[in-house]
Amino acid sequence: MSGTTSVAMEDPQPREMAGKRVLIVYAHQEPKSMNGSLKDAAVSELSNRGCQVTVSDLYAMNFEPRATKKDFTGPLNNSDFFNYGIEAHVAYKKGILSSDVIEEQKKVQEADLIIFQFPLYWFSVPAIMKGWMDRVLCQGFAFDFPECFDRGFLQNKLALVSFTTGGDAELYSKTGLSGDIKYILWPLQSSMVCCISVVSKSWPLRSALLLNTHQKIRERRWWLLGQGDWRPSGKSSR
Amino acid sequence: MSGTTSVAMEDPQPREMAGKRVLIVYAHQEPKSMNGSLKDAAVSELSNRGCQVTVSDLYAMNFEPRATKKDFTGPLNNSDFFNYGIEAHVAYKKGILSSDVIEEQKKVQEADLIIFQFPLYWFSVPAIMKGWMDRVLCQGFAFDFPECFDRGFLQNKLALVSFTTGGDAELYSKTGLSGDIKYILWPLQSSMVCCISVVSKSWPLRSALLLNTHQKIRERRWWLLGQGDWRPSGKSSR
Repeated sequence: MSGTTSVAMEDPQPREMAGKRVLIVYAHQEPKSMNGSLKDAAVSELSNRGCQVTVSDLYAMNFEPRATKKDFTGPLNNSDFFNYGIEAHVAYKKGILSSDVIEEQKKVQEADLIIFQFPLYWFSVPAIMKGWMDRVLCQGFAFDFPECFDRGFLQNKLALVSFTTGGDAELYSKTGLSGDIKYILWPLQSSMVCCISVVSKSWPLRSALLLNTHQKIRERRWWLLGQGDWRPSGKSSR
Repeated sequence: MSGTTSVAMEDPQPREMAGKRVLIVYAHQEPKSMNGSLKDAAVSELSNRGCQVTVSDLYAMNFEPRATKKDFTGPLNNSDFFNYGIEAHVAYKKGILSSDVIEEQKKVQEADLIIFQFPLYWFSVPAIMKGWMDRVLCQGFAFDFPECFDRGFLQNKLALVSFTTGGDAELYSKTGLSGDIKYILWPLQSSMVCCISVVSKSWPLRSALLLNTHQKIRERRWWLLGQGDWRPSGKSSR
């Protein structure tokens, strides 16, 4: 492991945790995988601390990633020229989004914290999770204009990006072949801060560094729970 | 338009173009969209210059974005623990990938230039295109270890990222709300340089700035064709 990680060794106090609702958006095909284990560990730890945890197991749900006309259960706003973003916005307001999208939006709406758990595929989320973002976080629900970023509709929630990589910390360092993980995470974190609050800019980095070894669940628990604070004292710097 | 773009105003000479094969991986639901127009313009221009152009119209194909066991037509390498990346690698070598993936790999293999044409969804490609990347560009076919980046298997090809944005150039500038487009493109370009050659680091930026107005097809043609050189004189800097 790189010496660049610093994980608090003391067990955090479980203050402000009980009663919080957590949604884990989880994308791995294999329950016995590291991602599956991390998801299970999060469910267990958070439940033990009094959180109410919901998991969207995207592969198990066979979640639809494609953004198409099938997402709308009523007539299109403009059937002559299909603009998915506009149609989704109108459909959200009319309540005619497809049931799978509405179901996920309800889970998001009810959550205080959303954890995205996935393996890095081509320097980003797997397509099935990208589809969740594309379809669920639609205009009107997650953001609008100018209600985005600091004014995004989900700013009362926290988002946490937790993932595994196919290489070690060095590979994702400033001098590594894959490049600095901070840059790799930029678009993903931009998506999050556009509508949600990111727990901390440094945490996903730490996750990438930690989660690459298969014996880090305990450290990750500390990491997941931070220093015991549910919400960081300061807003994430952007 | 921002003054930061600089597009050559002279029509480039069509040297080194004839006979080249181009694959356009295209992700838009609406043929009449700006993305559809850009795809059509590229097909027309490149065909006129003697290129052989193939289009993978992902939505029209209802391309499957999810990376699952269905991608393998024979017995799994390890049916007790499903690791998609390993299974894809083994299946590629055995020739038991699903027919849709094999078909796309053939198109890639035959192409000299691959153009990715899409609207930016959540600071990245739409899920359907991410699925194309996840499934088609598998280990063994696009890269291996250590045959990646400079040694990637598709380094004899060029990749060109062409996309539209929902905001203007200022929004994607260093001081814009969405942040510098260069950072947004980082993971996508990292994926490309991992196995293919990127035409130029600055071109996708120029595309983002240009394509946002709906009257730029001519300029885009120049941009698409660069200064008339099929391949830039220097390798892209990474």
